[in-house]
Amino acid sequence: MSTNLTNPSKQNLIPQITVDCVIFGYENQKLKVLIPRINFKGDFWALPSGFVNQEDDIDEAARKVLQFRTGIDDIYLEQFSVFGKASRNHTDFLNKLLELNEDRLQASESNQEEYLWFTKRFIAIGYYALVDIAKVSPQKSDIDQAIEWHDIHALPTMILDHQEIVAEALETLRGHINEKINAFNLLPETFTMREVQEVYEAVCGRTFVRTNFQKMILELNVLERLEKKFTGAANKAPYLYRFRK
Amino acid sequence: MSTNLTNPSKQNLIPQITVDCVIFGYENQKLKVLIPRINFKGDFWALPSGFVNQEDDIDEAARKVLQFRTGIDDIYLEQFSVFGKASRNHTDFLNKLLELNEDRLQASESNQEEYLWFTKRFIAIGYYALVDIAKVSPQKSDIDQAIEWHDIHALPTMILDHQEIVAEALETLRGHINEKINAFNLLPETFTMREVQEVYEAVCGRTFVRTNFQKMILELNVLERLEKKFTGAANKAPYLYRFRK
Repeated sequence: MSTNLTNPSKQNLIPQITVDCVIFGYENQKLKVLIPRINFKGDFWALPSGFVNQEDDIDEAARKVLQFRTGIDDIYLEQFSVFGKASRNHTDFLNKLLELNEDRLQASESNQEEYLWFTKRFIAIGYYALVDIAKVSPQKSDIDQAIEWHDIHALPTMILDHQEIVAEALETLRGHINEKINAFNLLPETFTMREVQEVYEAVCGRTFVRTNFQKMILELNVLERLEKKFTGAANKAPYLYRFRK
Repeated sequence: MSTNLTNPSKQNLIPQITVDCVIFGYENQKLKVLIPRINFKGDFWALPSGFVNQEDDIDEAARKVLQFRTGIDDIYLEQFSVFGKASRNHTDFLNKLLELNEDRLQASESNQEEYLWFTKRFIAIGYYALVDIAKVSPQKSDIDQAIEWHDIHALPTMILDHQEIVAEALETLRGHINEKINAFNLLPETFTMREVQEVYEAVCGRTFVRTNFQKMILELNVLERLEKKFTGAANKAPYLYRFRK
């Protein structure tokens, strides 16, 4: 849910639109997704998302979500799909939330207005990003109980179609990796072939045969080979690479 | 502009959203785009587009536009991008339209309401389709003066960012052709390698060397080679192909 949930200033927002962000993180050969859990009874998990101010480009709205959630500005970010089924509304989620949290959420006129606003059908514009987990300090919103990295193979059950949004983002990420491996900014200035292969294996969710992988990645023509890495056993030391400018 | 322009029944539409359709057509080794011209002074051209009914999926909204504009139902249709700049509104276009057509468009209270609705910032969800021109009967809307196929290299100047929407659709189409060549349904049941090459050359806007093209397309593993084509000079007759099931 958006950080605007508790104070939406809705008159300045485009109604029935959200930007939903799948923030992938890479660390120790693992691919993860950053997912907040909201601070109400009921174990509700939802992708980081936001509304679109009338005066913001949609890309800007997504950038604000990412900037807030990760604390960093220059994240590679790409819009990948739109989720616009007519049945896409928060009614079931909100009803369950209200039922389980009667003690905290009382009916009032302003709540009623907010309820009507939220239970309309929403179109979600999906964005994905891929970051180095070591560089990010995940940020809770006012309504979050926690925000954590979850292994791509062990995601919590999320509200609405957020599971499907992650699946589609992952498919897009996999399709883009050859073109975007540099832009993702996950590798140090210089790195070994093994380190590149580890990123690919985490993202693609499968192993590669070393020799085949090396051939494939060199054919992309994005890497430049440097001097041998010094390890003390020079003849076994792996080559170092960097991205071509 | 949408066919809803003159009668938008706006209470049932999602505000500030359109589905904009780039309908590519193929005929005689040429790639074209289907573009209506509206029936007002001022030479305004705009992509076929529509609003989204509250009860329709966004894909359904796009399908309705395509079905209406082409008369056919089973068109391959894909959502490719969203255009959501904050500056994206019809104000300049509408003001010019009103100025040039004062004789037909009088100010009234209901016009004023419509004007305010239209001059808000709109987010356009872009869809593209590719059809066999021979199978389509282009359909004007109530507000169109004409709807015609325009060569991709000689498009009229369109309103808003519609030129950019076409450019991005074309880039997507080119990126998808290897996967989608069968789905596009542009070739007869059986065809020659030359006919496939002609589709590729029209879509990609460049020529291919025959032998390289043949090697590339056979490596995709989507074609099945049939018996030789009979032309009377059997040893020079080209092979026939069809798509694998």
